[in-house]
Amino acid sequence: MQLTLDRPTLISLAAGFTDHASLPVMETTRLLRSILMEPKMARRSLQYGSTAGDPALRKLTIERLRNLDSSLDSPIYTPENVLITHGSQQLLYLVTECLCDPGDIVLVEDPTYFVYLGILQSHGIASRGIKLQADGLDLKELGRVLDDLKQRGLLPRVKMLYLVSYFQNPSGITTSLEKKRAALELLKKYEKDAGHPIYLLEDAAYRELRFTGAEVPSGLSISSDRVIYAGTYSKPFATGIRVGYGVVPEPLLTVLTRVKGNHDFGTSHLLQQILRAALESGAYEQHLALLQSRYSAKARVLTRAMEMEFPSDAIQWEKPAGGLYVWAKTDVPTGRKSKVFNGALEENVLYVPGEVCYPEDPTRRAPRNTMRLSFGGASKSEMREGIRRLGKVLRAGR
Amino acid sequence: MQLTLDRPTLISLAAGFTDHASLPVMETTRLLRSILMEPKMARRSLQYGSTAGDPALRKLTIERLRNLDSSLDSPIYTPENVLITHGSQQLLYLVTECLCDPGDIVLVEDPTYFVYLGILQSHGIASRGIKLQADGLDLKELGRVLDDLKQRGLLPRVKMLYLVSYFQNPSGITTSLEKKRAALELLKKYEKDAGHPIYLLEDAAYRELRFTGAEVPSGLSISSDRVIYAGTYSKPFATGIRVGYGVVPEPLLTVLTRVKGNHDFGTSHLLQQILRAALESGAYEQHLALLQSRYSAKARVLTRAMEMEFPSDAIQWEKPAGGLYVWAKTDVPTGRKSKVFNGALEENVLYVPGEVCYPEDPTRRAPRNTMRLSFGGASKSEMREGIRRLGKVLRAGR
Repeated sequence: MQLTLDRPTLISLAAGFTDHASLPVMETTRLLRSILMEPKMARRSLQYGSTAGDPALRKLTIERLRNLDSSLDSPIYTPENVLITHGSQQLLYLVTECLCDPGDIVLVEDPTYFVYLGILQSHGIASRGIKLQADGLDLKELGRVLDDLKQRGLLPRVKMLYLVSYFQNPSGITTSLEKKRAALELLKKYEKDAGHPIYLLEDAAYRELRFTGAEVPSGLSISSDRVIYAGTYSKPFATGIRVGYGVVPEPLLTVLTRVKGNHDFGTSHLLQQILRAALESGAYEQHLALLQSRYSAKARVLTRAMEMEFPSDAIQWEKPAGGLYVWAKTDVPTGRKSKVFNGALEENVLYVPGEVCYPEDPTRRAPRNTMRLSFGGASKSEMREGIRRLGKVLRAGR
Repeated sequence: MQLTLDRPTLISLAAGFTDHASLPVMETTRLLRSILMEPKMARRSLQYGSTAGDPALRKLTIERLRNLDSSLDSPIYTPENVLITHGSQQLLYLVTECLCDPGDIVLVEDPTYFVYLGILQSHGIASRGIKLQADGLDLKELGRVLDDLKQRGLLPRVKMLYLVSYFQNPSGITTSLEKKRAALELLKKYEKDAGHPIYLLEDAAYRELRFTGAEVPSGLSISSDRVIYAGTYSKPFATGIRVGYGVVPEPLLTVLTRVKGNHDFGTSHLLQQILRAALESGAYEQHLALLQSRYSAKARVLTRAMEMEFPSDAIQWEKPAGGLYVWAKTDVPTGRKSKVFNGALEENVLYVPGEVCYPEDPTRRAPRNTMRLSFGGASKSEMREGIRRLGKVLRAGR
C-alpha cells in the first residue's frame, strides 16, 4: 500500500484497496446528517461507548448473519456474542493474541492471507498448511496433518484452524458447507488429545462481495461453541470507515473483550453509528448491490485482458465468483527476486508475488510461480494497461 | 464504563467519560461537510490510508507539539516520527507489546493509570512503583530502585519508565521539566548495565486539558532518542472520534508501524480527516478553549461540594490544575470491599477505589484509603448530589 501511495503513476494490481470511484460519499453524507442532526444521538456518537460495541449494531449484526445463513430461527448466537472491532483484522489479531502462546501451531490454508501469516510469525506461532481443492480444504490432508501432529505429541500446541472461507485471499476459492462441517468434526475428534478446544477461525472478509453462485452458510450455522467468525463492514461499504466484528463463543469472548479494552477501549462510536444507520436505513444493502455488480464487471475486464494479453499456454486461473482477486499460476518464477516481478516494476506494474502467501513448511518448497492480481483498487483502463504490460513481461521472461 | 451504561440512574464519578453537553456536534457536522463536499477529499477519506497515518495530520501534529513545547526551531522530531493510532491507548499498547517480553520490568508512578497496569499484567510484565511528590517523581527513590535492580542483576529486564506527565491519572500531579530531565539522565546512566536503551514513555493524554498554571514542555524537548510521546486528540475534542498518536524514535517506530499494520492496517482515514480539518480550520483550538473553561468550572463545583459535604478533618485533596480527576485521601478504607465503596453504591454513586491504581509491590502494602473522583462525565448537579451522598457515607463509615 505504501508503494502505491508513494508512486502515483504505478498501476497497482497488488494492494487490497477497494474501488475508488464507487466509495459511498453521498450515502455517508446523508447518514452522518441523520446522526448529527438528532442532538441525543449526535452526542452519543461523539462520546465513548462500551468496549464490546454499540448494542444496536451488535443486534443488527446478528440479524444480518441469520439472514445470510438462512437460519432465522437459530438461537445459537445472540448479540451478546458480538464484539465490534476496528476492522475484522483487529478481530483476527485479538483471537490470535488471546488464544495462542509462542510455539503454538495454527493450521492454515496453503496458500492463505499473507498478513495473517505475519501475525502468526510476529507472535512466534508456527503454521501448518493444508492444500486447497476447488471447494476448499483437502480433508484427507487435514486428517493426515492432525494424525502427524498427534503422533509427534504436538496436538496440545494446536489451537485453531484459520479459514478464509469465502472468495479466499489469495486463491478466490470458497469453502463448501460440507467441508466446514467435516473439518469441524475432524477437529473435534482430536480435542481429547489436544486437551482443549480446537477452534475454527472463519475469516469471512470477502463474503458479501459475491457476484455469482449461491450463498454458502457460515460455520456459525453448524457449531455453537467452536466457531469464531470474523466479519467486516469495511470492504462492503467503505474501507476508510474501519468497522468489523467477531461472533465469539464464551469464555473466549470475555477474554477478547478485556484485551480489546486494553487495545483501545472500544471501536470509535461515531464509526459504529454510521454503520448502524447504514444497516437500519437500507443504505448498506443498496451500496453493497452496487459494489457487487461493479466488482463483477471489473473482474470480467481483468480476466478478459488476461485472456488477450497473457501467453495462453502457460498461465492458468479461475474466473472469480466474488472477492477482489484473481490467482494466476504461470510456468515461470514470479517471486520478488524474479525477472517477471522486477520487469513488471520497471513497467510500473505491481502484483503480489504468490510466494508470500504460503506458510513455511520444511516438507515442501513453496511454489514460486503464482501471482495475486486485484481488481479492487485499479480502474478498468488501468487494469487493461497493467495487464498489457504484464503480458509483455511474461512473454519476454520465457 | 459498563456499569455506568447499564445503570442509567447511577451517578458516576468514576468512569473517564468526558463532558457530554459540550461534545462538538456543530463543529463535527461542519468539518464533515467540508470533507465530504469536496469529491476528491471525500473519496480519500473513505478509502484505506497508510498504516503510519495521514501525512497532513502527522505534519500538523508535529507543528502543534513544537508550539506547545515552544521549540519552534527544534528539528528533533519530524512528521516521519509520528504514528497515528486509534486513541493514545493503542500507542501505549503497541509500545508495551513491542518493547517488552514476559518477565520484563516497567517502572511506573505510584499510583498510576490503572488500565496501563492491566496492560502490563496481561503481558506478564512486572512493574516497580516510584513515589510521587508535588512536582512529579521522587528522584531519590528512582535512583534507589535502579540501584537495587542493578545489584540484583535485573537491569537487563528494565525497558522503560512510564510517566503520565500532565495532570496525572489518578493523582492530578504534573511532572516538572527539571524532573523529566533528571529522570532521563538517571535512566541513561543505567543503560550500560541494562545492555539496551531504557525509554521514557511519556503519556500526555491530559496535557491539553489544562486550566491553570504554565505549559510544561514535554520530554521531546530534551531527548531525541529516548522519549516515546503518547498524545491524543480524543479527550480534547471528542472521545467518540478515536484518534491519538505517538512520536517515536527509530528503530522502534518501524517495529510499531508493522505491528500496527497487523492490528488494523492503520487508523480510520475518515476519523483522521476530521481531526486534520479540525486542526487546519482552528475548530480544534476553539473547542479546546471551551473545554478548558468548562472543566475548570466543573472542577470548582466538585471541590466546593467536597469542601461542604466531606468530613473536613479526615480527607485531603489538591485542587486540580487540569485533567479530569481529583485524588482524595481519607482516613478510612475505600476499596472495593469497603463499607464506604459499597455504601456509596447503595446510594447509587460510583468512584474509582484508589487501590487499583497502585502497582503490585511486595515491599509495601498498597494504600487502601484513596479515591479518584472525576469531573469529566457527570453534570454539575450530578456532582453536587453525588458528593452529598458520598459525604453522608463517609461520615457514617467513621
